[in-house]
Amino acid sequence: MRKIAVLTSGGDSPGMNVAIRAVVREGIRLGCEVFGVYGGYEGLIEGRIKRLSERDVGGIIHRGGTMLQTSRSERFRTEEGRARAVRQLQASGIESVVVIGGNGSFEGAKKLEAEGVATVCIPGTIDNDMPGTEMTLGFDTAVNTVVEAADRIRDTSFSHDRIGLIEVMGRNSGSIALWAGVACGAEYVIVPEIEFRIEDLIRKLQASIRDGKRHSIILSAEGVGSGADIASRIKAMAGYDVRTTVLGHLQRGGSPTAADRVLGSRWGVEAVHLLTRGERGRLLGIVSNKIVAHRYDDPIRQENHNDVSLATILQNLSI
Amino acid sequence: MRKIAVLTSGGDSPGMNVAIRAVVREGIRLGCEVFGVYGGYEGLIEGRIKRLSERDVGGIIHRGGTMLQTSRSERFRTEEGRARAVRQLQASGIESVVVIGGNGSFEGAKKLEAEGVATVCIPGTIDNDMPGTEMTLGFDTAVNTVVEAADRIRDTSFSHDRIGLIEVMGRNSGSIALWAGVACGAEYVIVPEIEFRIEDLIRKLQASIRDGKRHSIILSAEGVGSGADIASRIKAMAGYDVRTTVLGHLQRGGSPTAADRVLGSRWGVEAVHLLTRGERGRLLGIVSNKIVAHRYDDPIRQENHNDVSLATILQNLSI
Amino acid sequence: MRKIAVLTSGGDSPGMNVAIRAVVREGIRLGCEVFGVYGGYEGLIEGRIKRLSERDVGGIIHRGGTMLQTSRSERFRTEEGRARAVRQLQASGIESVVVIGGNGSFEGAKKLEAEGVATVCIPGTIDNDMPGTEMTLGFDTAVNTVVEAADRIRDTSFSHDRIGLIEVMGRNSGSIALWAGVACGAEYVIVPEIEFRIEDLIRKLQASIRDGKRHSIILSAEGVGSGADIASRIKAMAGYDVRTTVLGHLQRGGSPTAADRVLGSRWGVEAVHLLTRGERGRLLGIVSNKIVAHRYDDPIRQENHNDVSLATILQNLSI
Amino acid sequence: MRKIAVLTSGGDSPGMNVAIRAVVREGIRLGCEVFGVYGGYEGLIEGRIKRLSERDVGGIIHRGGTMLQTSRSERFRTEEGRARAVRQLQASGIESVVVIGGNGSFEGAKKLEAEGVATVCIPGTIDNDMPGTEMTLGFDTAVNTVVEAADRIRDTSFSHDRIGLIEVMGRNSGSIALWAGVACGAEYVIVPEIEFRIEDLIRKLQASIRDGKRHSIILSAEGVGSGADIASRIKAMAGYDVRTTVLGHLQRGGSPTAADRVLGSRWGVEAVHLLTRGERGRLLGIVSNKIVAHRYDDPIRQENHNDVSLATILQNLSI
Repeated sequence: MRKIAVLTSGGDSPGMNVAIRAVVREGIRLGCEVFGVYGGYEGLIEGRIKRLSERDVGGIIHRGGTMLQTSRSERFRTEEGRARAVRQLQASGIESVVVIGGNGSFEGAKKLEAEGVATVCIPGTIDNDMPGTEMTLGFDTAVNTVVEAADRIRDTSFSHDRIGLIEVMGRNSGSIALWAGVACGAEYVIVPEIEFRIEDLIRKLQASIRDGKRHSIILSAEGVGSGADIASRIKAMAGYDVRTTVLGHLQRGGSPTAADRVLGSRWGVEAVHLLTRGERGRLLGIVSNKIVAHRYDDPIRQENHNDVSLATILQNLSI
Repeated sequence: MRKIAVLTSGGDSPGMNVAIRAVVREGIRLGCEVFGVYGGYEGLIEGRIKRLSERDVGGIIHRGGTMLQTSRSERFRTEEGRARAVRQLQASGIESVVVIGGNGSFEGAKKLEAEGVATVCIPGTIDNDMPGTEMTLGFDTAVNTVVEAADRIRDTSFSHDRIGLIEVMGRNSGSIALWAGVACGAEYVIVPEIEFRIEDLIRKLQASIRDGKRHSIILSAEGVGSGADIASRIKAMAGYDVRTTVLGHLQRGGSPTAADRVLGSRWGVEAVHLLTRGERGRLLGIVSNKIVAHRYDDPIRQENHNDVSLATILQNLSI
Repeated sequence: MRKIAVLTSGGDSPGMNVAIRAVVREGIRLGCEVFGVYGGYEGLIEGRIKRLSERDVGGIIHRGGTMLQTSRSERFRTEEGRARAVRQLQASGIESVVVIGGNGSFEGAKKLEAEGVATVCIPGTIDNDMPGTEMTLGFDTAVNTVVEAADRIRDTSFSHDRIGLIEVMGRNSGSIALWAGVACGAEYVIVPEIEFRIEDLIRKLQASIRDGKRHSIILSAEGVGSGADIASRIKAMAGYDVRTTVLGHLQRGGSPTAADRVLGSRWGVEAVHLLTRGERGRLLGIVSNKIVAHRYDDPIRQENHNDVSLATILQNLSI
Repeated sequence: MRKIAVLTSGGDSPGMNVAIRAVVREGIRLGCEVFGVYGGYEGLIEGRIKRLSERDVGGIIHRGGTMLQTSRSERFRTEEGRARAVRQLQASGIESVVVIGGNGSFEGAKKLEAEGVATVCIPGTIDNDMPGTEMTLGFDTAVNTVVEAADRIRDTSFSHDRIGLIEVMGRNSGSIALWAGVACGAEYVIVPEIEFRIEDLIRKLQASIRDGKRHSIILSAEGVGSGADIASRIKAMAGYDVRTTVLGHLQRGGSPTAADRVLGSRWGVEAVHLLTRGERGRLLGIVSNKIVAHRYDDPIRQENHNDVSLATILQNLSI
């Protein structure tokens, strides 16, 4: 009988619990023993490993966060740390691990694979910035969370003829800002992928105001700089009063959307199928609406092509 | 200058307003005059046509339903009715129409095209049962609405160790039931695509109960028969107390999700682009995450392949 | 050291978990041992009693339903059943019980008190039909759930110029229908407290239609009869197409609102304070925004006076 | 026939639209002409006054913000500004004004009354800091918005064993923080009404951690100082990593809860009844669950007594 472990690593994202549930239940159904590693790679090093039953993952499908908790582990970046992690797995007789997380966690999975542990990686991050997939687990939920917040802020921006600036997550990726921007009808979006000239933004705001529309919503990705700073610059240059909201970790929590729950279930099942068939060292993705499994050593391209074209749509549809 | 009209027809779906907004604003941006037809094909016959400005579609992106209202028109099925509809368009100098609706509306668009009016059809229905697209406009919102309802019903089913049956929409298509079923961790789903044997359902319930789990959620698509009837049969055959909820038109309303808002915006923009380029008689779709435009006379295949495979996932992951 | 048990009984309501958490934590803080009875009075008879720690009630404040589960117990109506229940308590050394539930549960608490067990009863029901309190635990959440559903149904009713009828809970009490009706701007509400003449309803609908408003929302409390029947009668008498939604147990679930969470916390704390002070046989309530404790044998009046006056407001504000 | 105007002033709050709808419809029903003043006192000075029909306030009951928009007017603080405002009313033949807003707006209403205009003031603010009422319009919605945000942040705080600090609105009043704190099970709350010693907070966090609970939620009212500063001080003194979220204007928007919709409807109706009966210079409130009308020159006490006692409950129930 095969022993499979599952761990979540890096920033948590809504839908991780769904994937854990799928790995555990599909694993057990196919005759495996399934173990949960608590606290990500750090927990692996410390041997926080517990066998899970089908019941242990009951009642979690609709909950945000990860029941296994997560961490960012400095020790796992060291050879010694990784050696210890591998020994912990060996001590429990575990040969394979499903890693759920973002780019950092994927790097960790590759290293674990290099140490001889069979791994499959599920792209779990709200940032939608991983290669080989059009969508990451948690992205759809995060975008909906931002849109809901923007809908509320628009109410009060309209009441006061005021500009609302919302700083959203995204260090290198403007995906959340772009999708949420189109979805909430934002007047402007500031993202790492597109050069930002504050003059353009101010020109757009001035045009709106000339046109009789005095309230606007601006979305800015954190990677471009602090929302509060951008607000001050607008104030200094054009005299407009801009109210800033920093959504922060709000975007990471919340009950996953249906799309994230379906995606997490499909990926969790697929991860187990791959491992039980002996296919390892695979990064999962969804491309052209099909589940795909990339080899770690293949060149894996970025697949979230649509994003920048959304900027044009947003620009053209907001007035 | 080109004159474009937009109408919504058949059952309404969340996201129709988003598509209307996109057609109007992109149309005007490209130098067209855009007209709204009120009340679907029936309104077209009656000449309920009004020119729309960019402002007229402000503040609707987040609202369910359709600002243009909709109808099911008997008269439009007659030659006389259609002739009158065409005359109404000619009287306003309108040469092209964007139709947003389901399969019935698509049939109407084909007939309008046959009468010489340039048309593009946007698949707007919660049922996800149209050819040529992996997703219809409103489907994602409807699934999330069902999942939210199911999450609530699970609370009380657990409290009472009871079986909750939720009847959802879907005459010929089990898409809503299947997606929502996986997403809410339903124990069983009854859909038109899969032969239903009540003995299998009862066996599954009995196995759960033997296993110590006494509450369950069953989703059934309306096309398979009334939820209340199925509940009675379960009661008669196995003695279990089943509480039925009929979500009904609840599933049609509500603020559209981010995914539906982005999809509706992209399709609305594309419809205008096609018509201004002289490409007509096109059914829009999203396939492999790309916007596609099928010719009405091409064979258009069903693209929502994943659905039935979801039934297996659901079956295997619920215990 | 005092031993207190807590049980939930009858139909579950959102906020029961909050009250359980408050009883357990406040009890332990004051030096008591606190026990959970699983499965209501039936569970009490069967001795399903477990000691609870502060941690056991962690992570439940936001969850619908009741972690202790509930039941309607026939056996507890018999002397023998009750005698057995009392023996179970004695066997664990428990002298006092906090009962959370509706009118039936309150009757049970009185009987338990008569058998010599110290009891306090917390009014937990969505129906808002208990004496001695302006508000019951779960009512605010249920009303918000209905309003959210009605907001969605209004979207689609408007799109189709159609009448939507929503059947809501309330056997003898129209509280949910009246509050939700005012809050969603319903055009008509049918409740047990007010004589219903279908002619009045039809006259109102006709007036609206003459006035150019062709969509309406009707709320009807289940106690007045089946929503589907009322819809058929409207159809038969006036020819209007009415779509019916039966919200059913949907109204019982869902994360409790802030108001229900605050109320449940206050009542849970108060119940423990009373029992530790030796004050027993008390039904809690909230009157004039103050927590009150009625003696079981005092005459306890109905306090939800406002309800019927809401009907006038609803009538006057809808057009 | 009487002419009544309605205006919203100061910060907007969810439920203002409900009150506007009630004033307009009840006013017209009783034979008055009702006018909307756009843009608060500033708009009044500028004569932005428009007659409203019953239809003009249709479809707004569920929308956040205020359709009449609002402002903070410097000019209205001057005698000249007020004189001009009064002339604008006289020019339209309007003798009475319903003012919906917070303490600043109430001051304005008193001044208008002193100038001979009949006024009634509806307490519309999310802050719950007005005299003569247990609850202000918008407070219930704002608290629920904060609780929803806190529920999401708890998900991710748990996943990371981290402390989440949420800065909420409230310059002089901790009502939002206290109610939301009890409702979300916050571990600590920092409010203007209670002296804050950071040592106490750190002691509480240390006790939790010793006890094995490593994630916590802290709510702080903006009046006590910036959330980011408090987070830095915790980091400096105890080394804990605290993530801050600033909810900002998010708290002002959103569809009003059922309770706010009922309250706004009742107050709007009452305001019209008072004015048509010739009772003027009245501040509305809800005390002991009854609508009350205080004379401006009476001493009006603060009625939100419960707040501080909530701090004790919060402290005792969180572990």
